[in-house]
Amino acid sequence: MADKSLKSLWGGRFTGGLDPLMQLYNASFPYDKKMYEADLQGTKVYTAGLQKLGLLTEHELSEIHRGLDLILAEWRAGEFKDVPDDEDIHTANERRLGELIGRDIAGKVHTGRSRNDQVATDMRIYVREELKVIENILKELILVFVQRAEVEIDVLMPGYTHLQRAQPIRWSHWLLSYATYLSADLQRLQQLIERVNLSPLGSGALAGHPYSIDRDFLAAGLGFGGVIPNSLTAVSDRDFVVETLFWGTLFMNHLSRFSEDLIIYSTAEFGFIDLADAYSTGSSLMPQKKNPDSLELLRGKSGRVFGSLAGFLMTLKSLPSTYDKDLQEDKEPLFDALTTVSHSISIATGVLSTLAVNKERMLAALTPDMLATDLADYLVRKGVPFRETHHISGAVVRLAEVKKCGGIDKLSLEELQSVDNRFGPDVVAEVFDYERSVERRDAIGGTAKSAVLDQVARLRATL
Amino acid sequence: MADKSLKSLWGGRFTGGLDPLMQLYNASFPYDKKMYEADLQGTKVYTAGLQKLGLLTEHELSEIHRGLDLILAEWRAGEFKDVPDDEDIHTANERRLGELIGRDIAGKVHTGRSRNDQVATDMRIYVREELKVIENILKELILVFVQRAEVEIDVLMPGYTHLQRAQPIRWSHWLLSYATYLSADLQRLQQLIERVNLSPLGSGALAGHPYSIDRDFLAAGLGFGGVIPNSLTAVSDRDFVVETLFWGTLFMNHLSRFSEDLIIYSTAEFGFIDLADAYSTGSSLMPQKKNPDSLELLRGKSGRVFGSLAGFLMTLKSLPSTYDKDLQEDKEPLFDALTTVSHSISIATGVLSTLAVNKERMLAALTPDMLATDLADYLVRKGVPFRETHHISGAVVRLAEVKKCGGIDKLSLEELQSVDNRFGPDVVAEVFDYERSVERRDAIGGTAKSAVLDQVARLRATL
Amino acid sequence: MADKSLKSLWGGRFTGGLDPLMQLYNASFPYDKKMYEADLQGTKVYTAGLQKLGLLTEHELSEIHRGLDLILAEWRAGEFKDVPDDEDIHTANERRLGELIGRDIAGKVHTGRSRNDQVATDMRIYVREELKVIENILKELILVFVQRAEVEIDVLMPGYTHLQRAQPIRWSHWLLSYATYLSADLQRLQQLIERVNLSPLGSGALAGHPYSIDRDFLAAGLGFGGVIPNSLTAVSDRDFVVETLFWGTLFMNHLSRFSEDLIIYSTAEFGFIDLADAYSTGSSLMPQKKNPDSLELLRGKSGRVFGSLAGFLMTLKSLPSTYDKDLQEDKEPLFDALTTVSHSISIATGVLSTLAVNKERMLAALTPDMLATDLADYLVRKGVPFRETHHISGAVVRLAEVKKCGGIDKLSLEELQSVDNRFGPDVVAEVFDYERSVERRDAIGGTAKSAVLDQVARLRATL
Amino acid sequence: MADKSLKSLWGGRFTGGLDPLMQLYNASFPYDKKMYEADLQGTKVYTAGLQKLGLLTEHELSEIHRGLDLILAEWRAGEFKDVPDDEDIHTANERRLGELIGRDIAGKVHTGRSRNDQVATDMRIYVREELKVIENILKELILVFVQRAEVEIDVLMPGYTHLQRAQPIRWSHWLLSYATYLSADLQRLQQLIERVNLSPLGSGALAGHPYSIDRDFLAAGLGFGGVIPNSLTAVSDRDFVVETLFWGTLFMNHLSRFSEDLIIYSTAEFGFIDLADAYSTGSSLMPQKKNPDSLELLRGKSGRVFGSLAGFLMTLKSLPSTYDKDLQEDKEPLFDALTTVSHSISIATGVLSTLAVNKERMLAALTPDMLATDLADYLVRKGVPFRETHHISGAVVRLAEVKKCGGIDKLSLEELQSVDNRFGPDVVAEVFDYERSVERRDAIGGTAKSAVLDQVARLRATL
Repeated sequence: MADKSLKSLWGGRFTGGLDPLMQLYNASFPYDKKMYEADLQGTKVYTAGLQKLGLLTEHELSEIHRGLDLILAEWRAGEFKDVPDDEDIHTANERRLGELIGRDIAGKVHTGRSRNDQVATDMRIYVREELKVIENILKELILVFVQRAEVEIDVLMPGYTHLQRAQPIRWSHWLLSYATYLSADLQRLQQLIERVNLSPLGSGALAGHPYSIDRDFLAAGLGFGGVIPNSLTAVSDRDFVVETLFWGTLFMNHLSRFSEDLIIYSTAEFGFIDLADAYSTGSSLMPQKKNPDSLELLRGKSGRVFGSLAGFLMTLKSLPSTYDKDLQEDKEPLFDALTTVSHSISIATGVLSTLAVNKERMLAALTPDMLATDLADYLVRKGVPFRETHHISGAVVRLAEVKKCGGIDKLSLEELQSVDNRFGPDVVAEVFDYERSVERRDAIGGTAKSAVLDQVARLRATL
Repeated sequence: MADKSLKSLWGGRFTGGLDPLMQLYNASFPYDKKMYEADLQGTKVYTAGLQKLGLLTEHELSEIHRGLDLILAEWRAGEFKDVPDDEDIHTANERRLGELIGRDIAGKVHTGRSRNDQVATDMRIYVREELKVIENILKELILVFVQRAEVEIDVLMPGYTHLQRAQPIRWSHWLLSYATYLSADLQRLQQLIERVNLSPLGSGALAGHPYSIDRDFLAAGLGFGGVIPNSLTAVSDRDFVVETLFWGTLFMNHLSRFSEDLIIYSTAEFGFIDLADAYSTGSSLMPQKKNPDSLELLRGKSGRVFGSLAGFLMTLKSLPSTYDKDLQEDKEPLFDALTTVSHSISIATGVLSTLAVNKERMLAALTPDMLATDLADYLVRKGVPFRETHHISGAVVRLAEVKKCGGIDKLSLEELQSVDNRFGPDVVAEVFDYERSVERRDAIGGTAKSAVLDQVARLRATL
Repeated sequence: MADKSLKSLWGGRFTGGLDPLMQLYNASFPYDKKMYEADLQGTKVYTAGLQKLGLLTEHELSEIHRGLDLILAEWRAGEFKDVPDDEDIHTANERRLGELIGRDIAGKVHTGRSRNDQVATDMRIYVREELKVIENILKELILVFVQRAEVEIDVLMPGYTHLQRAQPIRWSHWLLSYATYLSADLQRLQQLIERVNLSPLGSGALAGHPYSIDRDFLAAGLGFGGVIPNSLTAVSDRDFVVETLFWGTLFMNHLSRFSEDLIIYSTAEFGFIDLADAYSTGSSLMPQKKNPDSLELLRGKSGRVFGSLAGFLMTLKSLPSTYDKDLQEDKEPLFDALTTVSHSISIATGVLSTLAVNKERMLAALTPDMLATDLADYLVRKGVPFRETHHISGAVVRLAEVKKCGGIDKLSLEELQSVDNRFGPDVVAEVFDYERSVERRDAIGGTAKSAVLDQVARLRATL
Repeated sequence: MADKSLKSLWGGRFTGGLDPLMQLYNASFPYDKKMYEADLQGTKVYTAGLQKLGLLTEHELSEIHRGLDLILAEWRAGEFKDVPDDEDIHTANERRLGELIGRDIAGKVHTGRSRNDQVATDMRIYVREELKVIENILKELILVFVQRAEVEIDVLMPGYTHLQRAQPIRWSHWLLSYATYLSADLQRLQQLIERVNLSPLGSGALAGHPYSIDRDFLAAGLGFGGVIPNSLTAVSDRDFVVETLFWGTLFMNHLSRFSEDLIIYSTAEFGFIDLADAYSTGSSLMPQKKNPDSLELLRGKSGRVFGSLAGFLMTLKSLPSTYDKDLQEDKEPLFDALTTVSHSISIATGVLSTLAVNKERMLAALTPDMLATDLADYLVRKGVPFRETHHISGAVVRLAEVKKCGGIDKLSLEELQSVDNRFGPDVVAEVFDYERSVERRDAIGGTAKSAVLDQVARLRATL
């Protein structure tokens, strides 16, 4: 009933009831072709299931598998030729199968299967494989943290809170702090892979399989750990996408903080580290200026992955149940996030394993006022009540200021005793020594060498 | 060096170097007092640890514990009185302890502890307890799904894709689809609780504990499953907050889809369900209009929890390591999300357990064209190749349209055989029967009664 | 100082201090080449500015402009050949210029210009041009709304609140509701274009131009409305990107609601509209099933654009001032959003201008209880106090239920007067007439024909 | 039809069809009471409109206005008493009006008005007033930037890109960079206020006003700039909320970058600024440690406001048109964002107007290599082609390194001429002078004093 004048307004853009832009808007082949191998695997196992049901003969199955192998070879050789009607990878592979083994047999491949369970299956296979690769390179990255922590365990630096110097720590302790974050990422990833690795295959369009296919057989054939036990959920559940995006978001958030620290540490003012040339951009004119491009990109791309999460969560919000076309918006953010995360892990590994530490600059940044807490602790160990120790330690600090002696470690024992006579001759060795300070913190998770090596051991056990 | 004219511009607002607005901006007591119990527990166990180290006498410990119990009683009775200087719950409880047992002893409570590890400990205890409550009420909600699914297993309704009628399903199947989503939420929640339940206590301000406290002892005393093995991470890791917010976001996303379905099902046009009066708003003037306020709020609040996640992820982005004051922004989104999720579970449980199903309207919405796929399946089982069956089934549909007979189920056997003579007299019983259609889908996850009851059994096993 | 074992761990991946993955991670040419024309324009005008300063001769300028024209022709013909070192569009164009006119002259092009002000300039030109196109097609879309509203002004339908039938409205009124939203989008877009259209050119790397270039001259030459008056801001301000992404997000949010309405209206249960074949996907087996793919994609892609906004806002959060490499993450979300929005406008225009309205189904969905408010209004006009009218109207509704007469419009005048004797014989004509009901609402913004045509006039005035 | 066992499962929680939690979940009074004044104003003007229509007598109107004034006085005095049934501010005020002037007259107040247009009206009035306050304090903040920039124009500091020292700039230039950002915020805010300031009043529940009320009269009476010309849009349009949240998000993003800079500048390593005590937290033990809590909160709260935006956008996504209860989720994020933004402006003003600049530390951070670009520029002005100047300048830098003389400014003229004999005796005065360097950049937006003062003048013109 759309009125003629409306039609004429618009009608010029397309004829024959076809809007070419709509085809473009609708097509997923340009990006879902990445999943060609998962799609072929899925069909291979699915047709084996059909043959078990008697819906395919052995000969038919053998022909189908031969054809699927040929297609796989074409994809791997970069020789697969798509045609304009290939709107997605499933259509493309099935079309090609018909060309290779004849449409009579190829036409049976889809018996009882729907695009809905097929695409969900393909995606889960694809994501599982990608996440396994990420698991491996993430372990490598953690290993680099651990190895540096072992090798450079003697390097001291300021520990910061509020970006203000607080207490001396080991550089290794800083390294292992991030390794600890990444170790939780690893655990989350392993739990995630298990949830990804469930089979939707055999769920039909929405209501289940009409010929009683053996879904456990299909799942086992594709390496899945189990089946999704409700067909409506099976075809529409994209939580594995959301979880993958969230995993990537939190992981990149960690890299953003790691990068932030290193960007600040590589300023002229801090001067704690030097990035390798491969991961920074120099200037012929300003040789001391080395822009930490790699770290800035790591930091910046934390936004990108979060954007994919946020966007896809909105796409899912209040969707009516089972399959809606909106779900097609799952692939681009997912694929982009997988690539971004994977590359970022490699870049972070490269940056970390090649940066140079300026231990002298780190040491020079330690200042006696960072030991005021240790001075109070010294008194606690001498039996002075905690609250009192703080007053005494504060008085020492003020005395050093008045004396303009350059720090509390420059006061003489007499001067210290003028504040409190419980200071003994051991105070210099016990307190005014950064190494001693970090060694004292030997409870679990502390800065003492033993505590740091304990962290190393715990982390290695997870790799 | 700020110039006088600048100072005078601003100086009127506060005197004595104090900006009252800054105190308001900075204070967390108004919201972190929720954690009073966790804070008191933490101090109780921490002081036991100090006593083990010899830093408190048994008498001191006993006095401290007596005081902490008194404070707990005050909180529970609603009689705790805060003073203007109570900027957070830690300060408030410690101030009160001093009043009750004297400052000399109370002043030792904080020996070797910092606000940084204290607040992280309190939050983890608090969140763990809240999540355990949520775990329980979530199980109850799943149980309501499961119970209705059992009781109402005979009710048929249209299954939709793209919000278009697709195939007949059981109402129970729809119910269990959401139960399946929630079951994954439950698994995620249980994994999350384990990650929340790790102890930061004994990490000091950032660099670890100065008196070798037994962190495993502290952890065990507070019911933690283990310790966070790096002190820098321990004081600054808010991933348990992020994960809790994400968990809530994905859970609420599920409720948003559940609500969307039910809102649509309760329109006059669908008429599948009636909400109980308790969960809808009627109109005296328009008695047939019953606004599904409860479902709309459930749907709308999915945005709210996501907002907390998105906001806090941004707060964390590229923070320098260890404690920064920015982290104080963790509590309000966290507490709001815990309350919203908890209430939403209860509301959803109430809505679901009281809504009425109009099974006649559901049945009336089933139309013969939803069986066209079954007609094709019938032929597949007769040995007709899949591709051919679709053409035949399509021809039958067109014949019914030409005959204007009201649907393919109204065609005579002769008419069906005029399309293909492989149609036999069993076609009516086999195909044109919605119950038969859903029963045929008896593979795992399908709509057959056996398959639905299998889902029920799987879900019960997780509760 | 990175230890050998660390280096050897990693060193295998690249040699010579070059990490090929870093080059990939760093390169923007694959996506920023879109801006080739803006980049060439920018250089053309910038070199004219240099010539004005005496830093280029007329001959040099003429050669440069000749070269730039040749490059533009190559791009337009699809013949521009990039080389591996072309890391971005600026490098590529400058490299090519050197090849075409010699490096001696080409080498002067960059005098006093930096990549930082260059890329900001290119982007602003590019975005301005894209937004102008969007402005035009958005006006076309609004026009389709307006035209349908005029043509189909006689079609009545239920107006919904809470997705429950509330009061009768005109279909045109529903159309114009969305046109009103889009009209605000148009206003925002026009304000946005003005903010995009400011010139950063002549700001150098960060500190300004070293040779006193005439920035107003550069701005005018590139069609900018003014200059950004601080060089630090000029090179780092990406608010025009954020604003563009937000504009797109809010616009797509409107389309998501428009699509939601139409998806629901096109269900079998509502049956108010039929999408054209070009914008839906049929099924040979289920001819009545027409999946509204176009609308679902419009709805789903609202998430995509929001994701770009959310991600880029996170990228910007707490960046140190002036240029950081993180800013390179601006282009992909921006370009994707511009394409998505532009296509979505065209698809929405196509959908709207070709859908068919089932006015009978709409009319049939109007029910007498939707007139209970009108019945109360009738009495108000007869002088009955408002509060009392609601009681009376409610009593009439209950009477109709008791009488099971099928609705309040089926009650006799006597029956009405038995409730309240102020009902007169005019009640049927005044109240029980849907057309009369919508006509009564003739205040601005109401459903009366005059009020709807007033909206049409207001909207036309903005186009 | 809900089965008994289901009911008994749940039924214990509430009786009589009422779920107390649902009342809590549903109620908005705890937060929407903020709008009491807007609600009273709206009713005042609306009833004047009714009187114009003859639907109220002059006496009735006078009584209503008297009652409304009494209620306003109660609110202002903190004496308004709410009762449990006051589910929102509209109910509460109307209930109280009935108590004060009698229900007969009070019952007429709502004639032709609906909660839907009422709440939209109240919110727009409230937001408009809040935004006007924000506009004023934002102007004050910009003024502080401008005033400091004028007063401290002689202070030089390094300009950074990638957080690496790049070129000398004026501290004032850095200040005005942020003022420039805020100036765009101001422009956006003024445009936003105009869009907020449109009247929905007189739109009824959704379909318009049944008694032809004069909407322009209502709008004028409430200070609105115009009316929303479609009733469906009028009652459901929450774009003014979204826009307000986005405005706040982008503004806070600017503050996050401002804070990030200052946090880094206030580290021990940079040492450029000292925060006033009022805006930082000291430590008695570590007197040099001054935590920049105010800046960290400003930075952290940028996430909070973004979270409100992100969450509410998700709430709106794909809502069916006109009023849905989901829209009630608009108020809490809005009110929180308004408060956060408003407080943050004041805190930022306080921080900026009281911080002290360490101009010696800033000066000391300038290094000769930051003048290498100026050296090249010197040669360009001597007529050396740009490309060649870079080689020469680079060679000078390398010579200085070889000579270990401490920087290019320490080379003798002879040494410089050994690289290129176009260096003249003026090179020291022309190039090796930071003041000269910044003065050279005198194009619009540059670092020269004249260019900075030009920025000051432009900014003042907007205030």
